[in-house]
Amino acid sequence: MSAPRFERVALIGIGHIGSSLARVLQRDNLAREIVACDRRAETLDKVRSLGLADRVADDPAEAVRGADLVVIATPLSAYAEIGRRIATAVMPGAILTDVGSVKGAVVRDLQPVVAQGVHLVPGHPVAGTEHSGPESGFAEVFQNRWCILTPPADGDPAALARVSALWEAAGMKVVIMDAEHHDMVLAITSHLPHLIAYTIVGTATDLEESLKSEVIKFSAGGFRDFTRIAASDPVMWRDVFLSNREAVLEMLQRFNEDLTALQRAIRWGEGKKLEELFTRTRAIRRSIIEAKQA
Amino acid sequence: MSAPRFERVALIGIGHIGSSLARVLQRDNLAREIVACDRRAETLDKVRSLGLADRVADDPAEAVRGADLVVIATPLSAYAEIGRRIATAVMPGAILTDVGSVKGAVVRDLQPVVAQGVHLVPGHPVAGTEHSGPESGFAEVFQNRWCILTPPADGDPAALARVSALWEAAGMKVVIMDAEHHDMVLAITSHLPHLIAYTIVGTATDLEESLKSEVIKFSAGGFRDFTRIAASDPVMWRDVFLSNREAVLEMLQRFNEDLTALQRAIRWGEGKKLEELFTRTRAIRRSIIEAKQA
Repeated sequence: MSAPRFERVALIGIGHIGSSLARVLQRDNLAREIVACDRRAETLDKVRSLGLADRVADDPAEAVRGADLVVIATPLSAYAEIGRRIATAVMPGAILTDVGSVKGAVVRDLQPVVAQGVHLVPGHPVAGTEHSGPESGFAEVFQNRWCILTPPADGDPAALARVSALWEAAGMKVVIMDAEHHDMVLAITSHLPHLIAYTIVGTATDLEESLKSEVIKFSAGGFRDFTRIAASDPVMWRDVFLSNREAVLEMLQRFNEDLTALQRAIRWGEGKKLEELFTRTRAIRRSIIEAKQA
Repeated sequence: MSAPRFERVALIGIGHIGSSLARVLQRDNLAREIVACDRRAETLDKVRSLGLADRVADDPAEAVRGADLVVIATPLSAYAEIGRRIATAVMPGAILTDVGSVKGAVVRDLQPVVAQGVHLVPGHPVAGTEHSGPESGFAEVFQNRWCILTPPADGDPAALARVSALWEAAGMKVVIMDAEHHDMVLAITSHLPHLIAYTIVGTATDLEESLKSEVIKFSAGGFRDFTRIAASDPVMWRDVFLSNREAVLEMLQRFNEDLTALQRAIRWGEGKKLEELFTRTRAIRRSIIEAKQA
């Protein structure tokens, strides 16, 4: 499908991903008008000075009025409240989508309040850096990454096609799956890695002061890669873990069992076991390089 | 100190780091002759075709003969045997150093066999990529990274100065500490991160086949960074964990306690606790960027 064009796009929440999308819309001229909404005046000031929107608003209900595309790009904990406030304001025929990292919660919080005739297409562009705020976005962030859409079974095919085309215009490869499966896949590929990274960086933070400065100094030995991940937005990630609790705890349980086995192998000097695992994990890296996701 | 020059440098083990050092020696003309030693004929063939040494040998005793600098760059488990074989062959006045990631083990395995008049200067250039073998090395890998030297208290100052100058010529910043402290600092900055990365990639590998292909596909959400670390050399890392067992298990214990606390916070929906930790860890990242180690 060729690039879609929207009359008025309302971006509810305009941080790293929201502002990156705004830049795509502007670059490719995909919207006649962009309305940016954020609850923080400071963020809206930045949006204005960056020229990312035609209009700003701090009230979601006002922002969505007359929009044929509404994109929620806030932390997940804001969804329920936003849903309530925009419920009657979104115009019939409009598409409502989002960029959240958990999809079951979207269905739970938004589906019930979406008015008849509004097309809900939950989405998750798997892209982004560890930076936050509208100043950190850039149009190329989506390039060659996957966007997962989790439309309801009885969803409108035309709305799905338009949202797909939007993300494809941003350079993404679009894949459709159900929300529950999405949350399981992301629990292992994204949520657990973040949880682990936050933990180990936290463990290092709690070391005695003298050791801590050395941790920073010698971080190039591996630790540094974790700090990048553990620098991700605290509120966004708090919400991810709370919204995808079951899947995250399930994956964490598996990880814990594996870590305990490895710990035991180290304690008992079982070199063969260690070498076997480390050889196996090396193969996964090759698969990722072959899949061009490295 | 200006760049040192050696008559004959014997590189015992010539993989990623050994070959990177060979390239530095060649680039800056720091050795009249380079002798490369490896137990694998295949590796020596690569060294020959890459032109990394003036001479190759598969016998360490032969390689070190007449060398004024001997650098051991093999996995740690080979040290004891190499020590035995070169004990009487290293010439008096020569410097014996290494590049191993654990330093207590070096003192344990090498110190007893070093002949009178040979100067032992254990070292650890904290640098490298996840790739292995002589073809993966490059002279710039050391640039702006730290090199930790752990000389014995009664070590020869001139030998220490020459080894320092060598790594400085390679672009490194040199720091001196005792072996035990080195092993504690590296346990948290390097060994534990690798252990965790190996574990989580292993956990993902054990998922059902269908889920596994999706893990590769959607790895950009955080998992991918772990796979890079978990692609590091299996034998080298097996040896690191076995050689630094006590410090690794100590750090792992702390990590486990922190992970359990986080797991509990997720289970009980304690958002405030999560957000506080995630905010703290973000600050560490800033320190690393400020320290120019990002």
